Amino acid sequence: MQLTRAADYAVRIMVHLAGLPPGSRPNRNVLAEASEVPEHFLSKILQSLARARLIDSQRGMNGGFSLARAPEQINLLDVVEAIEGPTHLNACLLPGDSCGRKQWCPAHCIWAEAQDAMTSVLKRSTIARLAARAGKDTPDQD
Amino acid sequence: MQLTRAADYAVRIMVHLAGLPPGSRPNRNVLAEASEVPEHFLSKILQSLARARLIDSQRGMNGGFSLARAPEQINLLDVVEAIEGPTHLNACLLPGDSCGRKQWCPAHCIWAEAQDAMTSVLKRSTIARLAARAGKDTPDQD
Repeated sequence: MQLTRAADYAVRIMVHLAGLPPGSRPNRNVLAEASEVPEHFLSKILQSLARARLIDSQRGMNGGFSLARAPEQINLLDVVEAIEGPTHLNACLLPGDSCGRKQWCPAHCIWAEAQDAMTSVLKRSTIARLAARAGKDTPDQD
Repeated sequence: MQLTRAADYAVRIMVHLAGLPPGSRPNRNVLAEASEVPEHFLSKILQSLARARLIDSQRGMNGGFSLARAPEQINLLDVVEAIEGPTHLNACLLPGDSCGRKQWCPAHCIWAEAQDAMTSVLKRSTIARLAARAGKDTPDQD
C-alpha cells in the first residue's frame, strides 16, 4: 500500500513546472535535474502526464514542457492517477464483479471509507499550493 | 497504492475467528473454506498473524487457531500491518534518510496527512465491530 516511485516523481515534475515564470518551457534535461528524476524514468512519466492532459510538450529548438492548465486546477490525486490509474485501495473497490463478497463483507465499506479519507486529502491539495510552498521553503541552491 | 491480497485475506480470517463461539479452534481447512483463502496462501498468512501475536495456534488432535486477544483490542490497521509491515504511503514517510528532499519538499506533509487520514479509519475499525456486522449481513449459506 505504497505510492509508486513514478507517481512521486510525477508530483516533483508538476510542482517544478508550476513554480516557473509564465511561458517557461524547460526541456527534458532541465526537468530531470530539477526534479531529481532518473533519466530512464523521465520519458515514461512525461508520456503519462501528457496522455492525462496535465502537461503539453512542444518540439523544436525552443520546445519543452509546460502545464496544460492552471496549477490551481490540478490536484495531487490527478497527478497520482495519471501515473497509477484510478485509485482502488482494495480490489473490492473496483467496479463490477471484482470480489464476490462485496455485497455483504463487513470490511468493504471500511476500505471505501479509508480510500475516501486518503483521496480527499490529495484532492484538496493543488499543485499551485504546493508550488507556492516550495518557493518559500526550498533551500538556496549551491 | 493498493492493499495486497494477503492483507485482505488476513482480515477475512480475523473477522471469521472473531465471529465464532468462545473456545472455538478451527483448523487450517475450515479457515481456508470459510474465508475463501487459497490453501497456498493460508500458511504464510497464519504465520504472519501469529508472529504479530494476533492469533494463537495449538497443535494436536483438537488443535487449531484462535484470536490471541479480545477482538475489541484488534483493529484493521493491526491486521494489515501484520502482513505488510508498517504503513508508509510514500518512501519519504519512512524514518531516517529515506528521501533527501523531506526537509523542504512541499508534498511531504501532504503524504503524511493522507496517510494519517487513511490509517485513522483503519485504526478505529475493530475486528469485533466487523464480526458483529458480518453476523447481521452474511447471506444464509446453502
